[in-house]
Amino acid sequence: MAKRVAIVGAGVSGLASIKCCLEEGLEPTCFERSDDLGGLWRFTEHVEEGRASLYKSVVSNSCKEMSCYSDFPFPEDYPNYVPNAQFLEYLKMYANHFNLLKCIQFKTKVCSVTKRPDFTVTGQWDVVTLREGRQESTVFDAVMVCTGLLTHPNLPLDSFPGINTFKGQYFHSRQYKHPDIFKDKRVLVIGAGNSGADIAVEASHVAKKVFLSTTGGAWVISRVCDSGLPWDMVFTTRFQSMFRNSLPTAVVTWWMARKMNSWFNHANYGLVLKDRTQLKEYVINDELPGRIITGRVLIKPSVKEVKEDSVIFSGPPEEQPIDIIVFATGYTFAFPFLDETVVKVENDQASLYKYIFPAHLEKPTLAVIGLIGSLGSMIPTGETQARWAVRVLKGVNNLPPRSVMREEVNARKENKPTGFGLRYSKALQSDYIPYIDELLTYIDAKPNLFSLLLTDPRLALAVFFGPCTPYQFRLTGPGKWKGARNAILTQWDRTIKATKTRTVHESPFPFASLLTVFLVLLVAIFLFCL
Amino acid sequence: MAKRVAIVGAGVSGLASIKCCLEEGLEPTCFERSDDLGGLWRFTEHVEEGRASLYKSVVSNSCKEMSCYSDFPFPEDYPNYVPNAQFLEYLKMYANHFNLLKCIQFKTKVCSVTKRPDFTVTGQWDVVTLREGRQESTVFDAVMVCTGLLTHPNLPLDSFPGINTFKGQYFHSRQYKHPDIFKDKRVLVIGAGNSGADIAVEASHVAKKVFLSTTGGAWVISRVCDSGLPWDMVFTTRFQSMFRNSLPTAVVTWWMARKMNSWFNHANYGLVLKDRTQLKEYVINDELPGRIITGRVLIKPSVKEVKEDSVIFSGPPEEQPIDIIVFATGYTFAFPFLDETVVKVENDQASLYKYIFPAHLEKPTLAVIGLIGSLGSMIPTGETQARWAVRVLKGVNNLPPRSVMREEVNARKENKPTGFGLRYSKALQSDYIPYIDELLTYIDAKPNLFSLLLTDPRLALAVFFGPCTPYQFRLTGPGKWKGARNAILTQWDRTIKATKTRTVHESPFPFASLLTVFLVLLVAIFLFCL
Repeated sequence: MAKRVAIVGAGVSGLASIKCCLEEGLEPTCFERSDDLGGLWRFTEHVEEGRASLYKSVVSNSCKEMSCYSDFPFPEDYPNYVPNAQFLEYLKMYANHFNLLKCIQFKTKVCSVTKRPDFTVTGQWDVVTLREGRQESTVFDAVMVCTGLLTHPNLPLDSFPGINTFKGQYFHSRQYKHPDIFKDKRVLVIGAGNSGADIAVEASHVAKKVFLSTTGGAWVISRVCDSGLPWDMVFTTRFQSMFRNSLPTAVVTWWMARKMNSWFNHANYGLVLKDRTQLKEYVINDELPGRIITGRVLIKPSVKEVKEDSVIFSGPPEEQPIDIIVFATGYTFAFPFLDETVVKVENDQASLYKYIFPAHLEKPTLAVIGLIGSLGSMIPTGETQARWAVRVLKGVNNLPPRSVMREEVNARKENKPTGFGLRYSKALQSDYIPYIDELLTYIDAKPNLFSLLLTDPRLALAVFFGPCTPYQFRLTGPGKWKGARNAILTQWDRTIKATKTRTVHESPFPFASLLTVFLVLLVAIFLFCL
Repeated sequence: MAKRVAIVGAGVSGLASIKCCLEEGLEPTCFERSDDLGGLWRFTEHVEEGRASLYKSVVSNSCKEMSCYSDFPFPEDYPNYVPNAQFLEYLKMYANHFNLLKCIQFKTKVCSVTKRPDFTVTGQWDVVTLREGRQESTVFDAVMVCTGLLTHPNLPLDSFPGINTFKGQYFHSRQYKHPDIFKDKRVLVIGAGNSGADIAVEASHVAKKVFLSTTGGAWVISRVCDSGLPWDMVFTTRFQSMFRNSLPTAVVTWWMARKMNSWFNHANYGLVLKDRTQLKEYVINDELPGRIITGRVLIKPSVKEVKEDSVIFSGPPEEQPIDIIVFATGYTFAFPFLDETVVKVENDQASLYKYIFPAHLEKPTLAVIGLIGSLGSMIPTGETQARWAVRVLKGVNNLPPRSVMREEVNARKENKPTGFGLRYSKALQSDYIPYIDELLTYIDAKPNLFSLLLTDPRLALAVFFGPCTPYQFRLTGPGKWKGARNAILTQWDRTIKATKTRTVHESPFPFASLLTVFLVLLVAIFLFCL
């Protein structure tokens, strides 16, 4: 009998998990609390409890070639960076194409996931769900938790003395939907992460004044990278990853800073990192420097004190009248339906082996998918996690002994710098390519560059020097997709096609022809001299 | 008796003209049609006839250090690129500081400026004005026309077959004020100039779809240039100007294209120039590529046909439903109060010697200020024109014989490429530094770099390699300003101060200290070997 797998959440990771289960012959049942799929990517005008909440203008930070499911490219006419409504469309196409909807029970909240009394033998779980007021308990052979990172807002009000006397409005960025509320107001956004930067920029179009307060600073990069190429297609290559991870951390940090500062000097724009030796997640924003140089957004240090209708910043004493404070202070994560003995969250960390399996469970029948701050796109990361996890749940792949797993988890918690490659500010972060490659190795799907170089050199070069698009994860092994090779070789065509919506017959540079004449002459002279 | 000068318009050039007249002991009377000064820079919710019209979000395209009056820097706390409301404030400060208001008659329209019967002897003009319904005629010894470039919209509807059948809304960009009108509409903006790009970007935040149609393409550059420096402080240096103007046009064009494409490849973004050998005015926009790569703005070729509720583009047949068309098709200019025998405008050109003096007048007592598409800021250009013009009107400086002037004007009309330097697409355009230098030479105020290098090398280097800020025009000669040297040497401080609104004690790169150790060792070994 096929193993029954409960999947919690029908967002990007949930959908991938359903598909992986189906492909491996398991029997998935996905419980989705809301009435539709898409998780994070489904914009609603009102915040829903237990579900990530978008603002209206959210656009993907990862381009379409880098953030698709590995065997399901985005439609050709999609823009390179996909606005949320289109992203949701894509997820629906995926669900329809692979017939995943039949496995999803909507409007069903998972109340608890507990070990069965015979867990040590069977590894089974009791999953209690609530649907239209009716509670139900079902036994499952395995559970995949796909509830994501962005549901539990972090609102550290204690760090803002005086906030309770503030007479203006304040809220967490999760509550933010439209910029209208900022019209003619003096706005303070706290936290220069992706949301904070986005909200400050949007507010600056309508507000009277906008301050963006950051304690640690941020590396801001634009989607429009070298010569207009998508930033992640430029940065995320195997070549660069190898280069990054084999040099001393100090050199890598220096090189990264140089690269980051080539767009704008982060010190001169008030955004320089307080600790430049640790890599924080990049902030992707195309407009922030333009808003700073025109004075529409003013970068400020941390807040020292909040008063009735103003804020005092730390550093040189400065008080600014403020009407609205937005706390773009990020998220914590939690699993309210899981007992602490299953997964314990402490200091923003969970004891998960390879960010997936609770290291101390007697049976590896529970996997957490998509709970990682990798520097790459979440879709292929979650999908690759699911591909491996499903094979572990099925029993095809095995985990190492629990002691080994615990050791690995503890080492990661310490977040000790190795002296090479990047040093991360948080233990939950991981470099994209090495992490994915590790998972692919487990399922025997990692492309072998050396043999590829011999059999298909064109592809090998594209795989090594080109962007590490998810199609690479489907070139070989279980789950191999026959469209992968072609998808890799045409990835740049699709990228350019999306923006090249006007073409002209380019007049060649007269200089170019002069150069040609010059070169021909040179060769002629050279041949003549021979 | 001091000569009486009529000045038409109290915009940026009008204010400079008043000041120059006062400084030269002339007696200026400035007629301003509206009820306040500032011309172009005064935003109003409604379009006023005969005055340029801004949209609410306009920000200066030229940074504060490059676009100030040469003896009146912007306040230190102004942003590098000044939004229109602050720009107007600055103009008012200037007018107050130099006590110019007393010379301005507001709400006074100039109806006609005609030669007096004895013009050939006296050079005098009859100026007929209308104020509160009362017409008045006054004799003036000279006239300065400061009505600017952007008052007469160019709306070439004939080039859009079917426009009269269009059931949606269409208007000239001059009518545009706020983006609200685009909410959920399908918008087509025609013309990728500064206004067109701005409007398309703004519309893209609220519209359903935005197309930006361009026939000739555009070089788009960002205010945020190399490492975040203001673009015009990077591009507009004497060193670069010399370099540009001494190389063959083909090389300069190739070099410029390379530079322009380093931000984003204009061909891949659909913006490539149809004719790359001619330099069109740059389009300054920080956000357009970001809006293109996220699919919010789609670049399209020219419009072939307009239908009831759609538009057909040229090139590969494509029809798109459209609700609103904005014609960002620029401006023509005209002098309705001047007889054609004084200044004749033909094919967007007037027969003005050095873009200022009608070449055929018997007496040089009329000057047009600020009618030039120079690639630099209009304020210092108009101001320098006024400085020279006033001295000509006063009789201190003389113009060459009329035949020489006519020859120069005719040569410019032909716009023949010289084979060196930039080639302009329009005859009205001129390179900024050579043009200003020519005017400064006439009034003996051009800084002498060689003697400066001997007497003040630090200043000389800043003048030659640094941005050609207007303070350079006040280092010597009549109108010399004693603050000029200091203003030049502190220009970068003011620039950086405007954005560096958060500072941290930067942790030095461990790598940097390693590098130091390495260098010290190298030197030690070298010395030891000696």
